[in-house]
Amino acid sequence: MKRIENVTIVGVGLIVGSFALALKQAGFSGKITGCDSSAVLHTADAFGALDLSEEDIVAAVQNADLVVLGAPVRTNLALLATIAPHIPSDSLITDVGSTKTEIAGRAKDLFGSDALRKFLPGHPIAGREVSGVEHGDAALFRGAPWALTPQGGPTPEKHDRVLAFTSHLPQLISTALATTVQSELGGRPELRDLSGRALREMIRLAKSDPQLWSEISTSNSDNIREALSLMERNLAALREGLGTQRFQRLFQEGSVLDPDAEPSAADDADPPHFG
Amino acid sequence: MKRIENVTIVGVGLIVGSFALALKQAGFSGKITGCDSSAVLHTADAFGALDLSEEDIVAAVQNADLVVLGAPVRTNLALLATIAPHIPSDSLITDVGSTKTEIAGRAKDLFGSDALRKFLPGHPIAGREVSGVEHGDAALFRGAPWALTPQGGPTPEKHDRVLAFTSHLPQLISTALATTVQSELGGRPELRDLSGRALREMIRLAKSDPQLWSEISTSNSDNIREALSLMERNLAALREGLGTQRFQRLFQEGSVLDPDAEPSAADDADPPHFG
Repeated sequence: MKRIENVTIVGVGLIVGSFALALKQAGFSGKITGCDSSAVLHTADAFGALDLSEEDIVAAVQNADLVVLGAPVRTNLALLATIAPHIPSDSLITDVGSTKTEIAGRAKDLFGSDALRKFLPGHPIAGREVSGVEHGDAALFRGAPWALTPQGGPTPEKHDRVLAFTSHLPQLISTALATTVQSELGGRPELRDLSGRALREMIRLAKSDPQLWSEISTSNSDNIREALSLMERNLAALREGLGTQRFQRLFQEGSVLDPDAEPSAADDADPPHFG
Repeated sequence: MKRIENVTIVGVGLIVGSFALALKQAGFSGKITGCDSSAVLHTADAFGALDLSEEDIVAAVQNADLVVLGAPVRTNLALLATIAPHIPSDSLITDVGSTKTEIAGRAKDLFGSDALRKFLPGHPIAGREVSGVEHGDAALFRGAPWALTPQGGPTPEKHDRVLAFTSHLPQLISTALATTVQSELGGRPELRDLSGRALREMIRLAKSDPQLWSEISTSNSDNIREALSLMERNLAALREGLGTQRFQRLFQEGSVLDPDAEPSAADDADPPHFG
């Protein structure tokens, strides 16, 4: 197994910036090279995330043992094609984008039968409503899942289907709620006087970067359209069911959801019987 | 001004239970009487919320200087009618329900021109996804608004309109999101493996009591239907606009919402000019 000594992060935003800080905090003794515009590299350097800065992407990856792509998802597709001919033959590329099917397909196009060895699609399920390496945090990934969807299995597609519901849908709901409240109450004092924790929590994500989410959404559009349609139908069912038994039934269906719970054994094979 | 020495709380749940605990923590030297079922009173007493317990509502209110109705909103309507003939003539009744128009109208029916003096509709904008006096917390109201909508003004209607957007809509969205995710992923391990803080925050409210919210929703149904319809339209606009400029525009519209901000002066009369 090759020892990873040179890590290059490309597109130095919140996620890979936090990754670099976490590596350093964990005592990584190799070198971290950042590749981005000079302004971003200057900021990343000031925050202690980098050992080396390199604006030229070919120069940035040519000695890398590990390349981490941290740009928005559509930019990562282009970056992958750009670096493919230039990275050392035994290096690994990974990314931290929110969708996996598209970039896994691109890696297959670029690397063919070598794709499994050259590119490991990844997605840390962590983030914030703010972006930029200046918000980087070495603790961002603590306790958070980091999905890896290697080539050759159905996992990139499965990842994108699940994330449409657990991440992309919540983001779009937060945005639509903020837009809805803004159109009714924007700038009126009642908004501040008559709002509580619930609204604040639910619109936190609405501050997220529109460009970033536009790219994620178009990169997973079929699944997101289905998730949105189902959500619209469930809202309509509550609206049409106000004051009926159906309203309470929908409430009860939702109340059992617990993302932290052990999965139920319902879908498993018959459990062993004892006694 | 009459000194408040005897406070009676009726329907001893999370909110008025917390109110009683907050009164005691603040050094209130009068007596707090609780009125509910014997089981609830036993719990409330064990948590130190009460000085006296009384299951009979007429006995519970006959010496009260202040009566606080803390049952679900439709139950409060019935309780108000029940106690109206029995409370002392110089006592004040208030409630902590999430809707105000209906109960303000009921007070007018019951008290006529005395309604302003006898009943002060109230709504602390605080709460949790759990209910019951056993979750009571003397600090629940710290930093939270407490809306009061006295008779004779348009404020009960204004309150209910605003709350449809700032509170009732977020609750129903949380429920619909939980139902949506549950129907796609309930019981599957991917739910736990591929969920983050965003989903957890947004479905926290889905654990709320269905009966309580059924009553709130039917008590403010016209406003809630309008809020839900607008939300459905905004979700559909995002869905139909995936990958277009409109998608980014909706994102930007929502991103300006800030419930903690000072209201903009845009709707005010011209500000004074200096210099």
